[in-house]
Amino acid sequence: MHSLLDEITAPSDLKTLSDQQLAQLADELRVDVIEAVSRTGGHLGSSLGVVELTVALHAVFDTPKDKLIWDVGHQCYPHKVLTGRRAGMGTLRQEGGLSGFTKRSESPYDPFGAAHSSTSISAAHGFTVARDLGQDTGDAIAVIGDGSISAGMAYEALNNAGAEGRRMFVILNDNEMSIAPPVGAMSKYMSGLAGTALAQLNAFGQDIETVLPGPMRDHARRARELVTGAVASQGTIFEELGFEYIGPIDGHDMSQLLSVLRSARTRAKGPVLIHCCTVKGKGYAPAETSADKYHGVAKFDVASGAQMKSGANAPSYTTVFGQTLTQLAEKDSKIVGITAAMPSGTGLDIFAQRFADRMFDVGIAEQHGVTFAAGLAASGLKPFCAIYSTFLQRGYDQIVHDVALQNLPVRFAIDRAGLVGADGATHAGAFDIGFLTALPNMVVMAAADEAELVHMITTAAAHDTGPIAFRYPRGTGTGVSIPQEGELLQIGKGRIVRPGAEIALLSFGGHLAEALKAADLISAQGVDATVADARFAKPLDHALISKLAKTHKVLITIEQGAQGGFGAMVLHYLADTGLLDGPLAVRSMTLPDRFIDQAAPDAMYADAGLTATDIAATALQALKRAPVSV
Amino acid sequence: MHSLLDEITAPSDLKTLSDQQLAQLADELRVDVIEAVSRTGGHLGSSLGVVELTVALHAVFDTPKDKLIWDVGHQCYPHKVLTGRRAGMGTLRQEGGLSGFTKRSESPYDPFGAAHSSTSISAAHGFTVARDLGQDTGDAIAVIGDGSISAGMAYEALNNAGAEGRRMFVILNDNEMSIAPPVGAMSKYMSGLAGTALAQLNAFGQDIETVLPGPMRDHARRARELVTGAVASQGTIFEELGFEYIGPIDGHDMSQLLSVLRSARTRAKGPVLIHCCTVKGKGYAPAETSADKYHGVAKFDVASGAQMKSGANAPSYTTVFGQTLTQLAEKDSKIVGITAAMPSGTGLDIFAQRFADRMFDVGIAEQHGVTFAAGLAASGLKPFCAIYSTFLQRGYDQIVHDVALQNLPVRFAIDRAGLVGADGATHAGAFDIGFLTALPNMVVMAAADEAELVHMITTAAAHDTGPIAFRYPRGTGTGVSIPQEGELLQIGKGRIVRPGAEIALLSFGGHLAEALKAADLISAQGVDATVADARFAKPLDHALISKLAKTHKVLITIEQGAQGGFGAMVLHYLADTGLLDGPLAVRSMTLPDRFIDQAAPDAMYADAGLTATDIAATALQALKRAPVSV
Repeated sequence: MHSLLDEITAPSDLKTLSDQQLAQLADELRVDVIEAVSRTGGHLGSSLGVVELTVALHAVFDTPKDKLIWDVGHQCYPHKVLTGRRAGMGTLRQEGGLSGFTKRSESPYDPFGAAHSSTSISAAHGFTVARDLGQDTGDAIAVIGDGSISAGMAYEALNNAGAEGRRMFVILNDNEMSIAPPVGAMSKYMSGLAGTALAQLNAFGQDIETVLPGPMRDHARRARELVTGAVASQGTIFEELGFEYIGPIDGHDMSQLLSVLRSARTRAKGPVLIHCCTVKGKGYAPAETSADKYHGVAKFDVASGAQMKSGANAPSYTTVFGQTLTQLAEKDSKIVGITAAMPSGTGLDIFAQRFADRMFDVGIAEQHGVTFAAGLAASGLKPFCAIYSTFLQRGYDQIVHDVALQNLPVRFAIDRAGLVGADGATHAGAFDIGFLTALPNMVVMAAADEAELVHMITTAAAHDTGPIAFRYPRGTGTGVSIPQEGELLQIGKGRIVRPGAEIALLSFGGHLAEALKAADLISAQGVDATVADARFAKPLDHALISKLAKTHKVLITIEQGAQGGFGAMVLHYLADTGLLDGPLAVRSMTLPDRFIDQAAPDAMYADAGLTATDIAATALQALKRAPVSV
Repeated sequence: MHSLLDEITAPSDLKTLSDQQLAQLADELRVDVIEAVSRTGGHLGSSLGVVELTVALHAVFDTPKDKLIWDVGHQCYPHKVLTGRRAGMGTLRQEGGLSGFTKRSESPYDPFGAAHSSTSISAAHGFTVARDLGQDTGDAIAVIGDGSISAGMAYEALNNAGAEGRRMFVILNDNEMSIAPPVGAMSKYMSGLAGTALAQLNAFGQDIETVLPGPMRDHARRARELVTGAVASQGTIFEELGFEYIGPIDGHDMSQLLSVLRSARTRAKGPVLIHCCTVKGKGYAPAETSADKYHGVAKFDVASGAQMKSGANAPSYTTVFGQTLTQLAEKDSKIVGITAAMPSGTGLDIFAQRFADRMFDVGIAEQHGVTFAAGLAASGLKPFCAIYSTFLQRGYDQIVHDVALQNLPVRFAIDRAGLVGADGATHAGAFDIGFLTALPNMVVMAAADEAELVHMITTAAAHDTGPIAFRYPRGTGTGVSIPQEGELLQIGKGRIVRPGAEIALLSFGGHLAEALKAADLISAQGVDATVADARFAKPLDHALISKLAKTHKVLITIEQGAQGGFGAMVLHYLADTGLLDGPLAVRSMTLPDRFIDQAAPDAMYADAGLTATDIAATALQALKRAPVSV
């Protein structure tokens, strides 16, 4: 068959196609996306679910003047193909290549980048208000999944936009899946909407009924009849929040999508929510039948769906966390786990298999999750709140106000600390060391390897006097042997890993192996270097740091985080105790003051200037400058 | 009349009183609270609104085994009086006295402290789950206002608790006021619930109808009749989220309150929400008739309601912000203002009087507010997002992910930076310098006085290339003359305020006056001190800092914030450029690593070790130690 996709250079080309051709284009687009992702890996399932929706939105609306905002952005692959980025799809999520999310700097068709969930309605409201104040921008359309809309931020945005009553569009992409099956009452409620006669159509939607397929039309009509007169002002939650509600509609039926979107675009005066039911992984059998609907996949074989296995032998930090917590929980019934919609990402799925009633998935709701954990801690339980570094930013005020200020023993398991690879800058865990060490009462640890992680989980479980956090990198461990039982670390005590002289390399967390390599490079230059693992950024090991400062000419702090974290705490201590008054040369090696784009983690750290070579060069240069010998 | 209140030593005493006596007790309690707050000042209006509710909750539930959690906590004065703290009410919000909020360390009747909004349902859910897992704790009851429940965090908690279906109680205290009249669709919706026949009673509530007064009973009955059968599973938003909904009830009618609470306590199997209508300032005419319902008052005369005026001559920073932004906006139509439910607290009420259509109150919704501002900035407008330092913690991820990463020119006006006086540790603006300077692309300023604030607002308005933040203290300015027009500051340039030698005091923000005093104290010891105002924590003025480092023996950084902020950035710079390799002695003066309890701001800074005397002593001691002269 003649390929329509080959002729599309920009969304404006879609205006020339018939509805039937648009349906054909969607079919071609689906095949194209499957083939592209089979070669790169990526977020396949959610992209397949919105193929028809993507075509229909670009066909009906006038992008890029109209602002199409994909929530999270990982479902944007069909959008990228249609907006001039088809040729780049082979570089997806790779160094120098296309981002796996929407990104403003990549295309004018990405008016607002994303990667964290539930921001799209707020951004769309911003574009909408700007239009009404005279900026040259069209309609704003937010496309948000059922998992994402359950976050408080999305509710705040609906509440505000609904009350303001300005013309804007929210497409609820309801596939009954976020990364894991969604949780929470709102999710149940939406399933109810989609499945029963309660899907009312309001006056706005009257002639939309006519485009609905038989069963849905009947449902809609009956729902309106039931409702009209009896409780006229009673509607869906969305209507109660001030939105016109249209739906549910079939998100894979092109003619239905086009009719509804055209009608909505023509008639909308205020905010409109279109409830669009889709199937994650749609149109690719291996994805549709897989439990996670191919949410995120490695490279795979298109015919069989078989994904390439990673060659790693060492277990991931995530698995070590899940297994260790489960072991500890066998002996301690007070241990409970909390995740914000990431049971498998955090390894708490392992814990849940054994202790289903002690694992709590609060949904995409980090604010609630942290304070819920504080409540559990206030009741005498031992909550492990497992949230990625980058998402913990969502619960920062709750960490300050509910946990640290009340000195409640919540344990924060912070996965994906440091640079994370293909997910790029939006998912970097760069700031947690700083934003946690600033807080009174907080204990902050970082694991140098997977054995250390076991010790830190064990230590956290036993730490009942206040909050404690431990961070660890994304990916596989270093391959060290994992102890049967973790040790109880002494709070605020680090360790010398390699004794030396002249230069001290003081590492916090996952860069210890790199520091050891740097010491070898320094040795090769005839200088003996000490390597220490701080283990704690708070409280600092004052004795260790004093000793290193007094017995070395150069002290280098090393961390997988931004300035203002571990190195800053060491500098504060050295300065304020006078240990810096003398000739000691100190350097702090941190992530640089810029966002680091996606690449393999090693390449990202090279970009960041944090390789063993960088460390050795910094140390030797400092030694050369050091004005006075010890 | 015989005083019942005098005989109450603990809530358990309420169990011996008749319903009529409980009503009398409430009347006495109201008078007591009015008299107490007239002598201390404080949050009067919200406390008066919950007098009957407080008595009824303690009479019906079994505190402290049952966990009564007051959202925000500023309505807890009657609760404090009943729970053994009556004698201390004269010390409210004062140094060494009772907190103005609930506080775990103050009483076992405060199971979960508060001060920031919308945390109570999450905490109550924590206590509930802990009970179900075998901890020795009773029922959890969250009391939350209509303003607070509109925040995303409260929605996240309802969504989670509703789905889990565990027995717990949420009292919605609906007074149609938070600090300002509430905004948003949810608020409109609740008004509708309270005002129309749609107040359905569900099966749970059947016999509650019998205790409702005539008109409400009729409403409730008709609502149920309308609803039964027709849309049986369609209920209020709260029911849709999984809560039994009871109400609305009259929160000042003791017999109704007692009946409803007793019935709910006896019968509840799952989560229950009781919609309780109250009047802010109830029972004290000057409060009821005032626009803000005496939300927060100074000391006042009980008979007349006249509040003591503050004797301050200088304008508040807040007013200077509001006036200056309004002036700038006269000439620049792209300037818009965003507040999260704090129009008067931020001074944006001044802006709104002139530019109502360019001011956006998003409600208690900091996450949405920040990303909404990012959307406005992406559209070419100049949003000033005015959020107190402590509340900006709520929008941290949005600052990272939506603003800084996309380098969007959102202007953050950060009031209440540093220590804030009577509101105590929960409201301290201690962490913003650190959590903002860590972010690439961010510009961070702090105003040394109100004239500097004018310059910084002007500079922020003109800064179109990325995000910029400026922080300023709570309260009145230093009394300097305010320029007619602000200057455009050069980004990343500080200034020498007082030239000197030997010791350099490098201040960032509101402590400049204290640094100048310290220089005088140092001069009195025969040492000449330089005083500089950094103006910028990011980007740092490298030339200024290098010069200070090279021409002084001692360099002291001073800031009204925690470690990891301005001082840390200076230390990183000095260390990494080798300026610390030599004999320079550096000290970083920050807030200490503990939370500082309420007192007058000066007393809090004295507690923090940040007086002029402290600065001078630190500097002179460092000078004495400085090993080598320059």
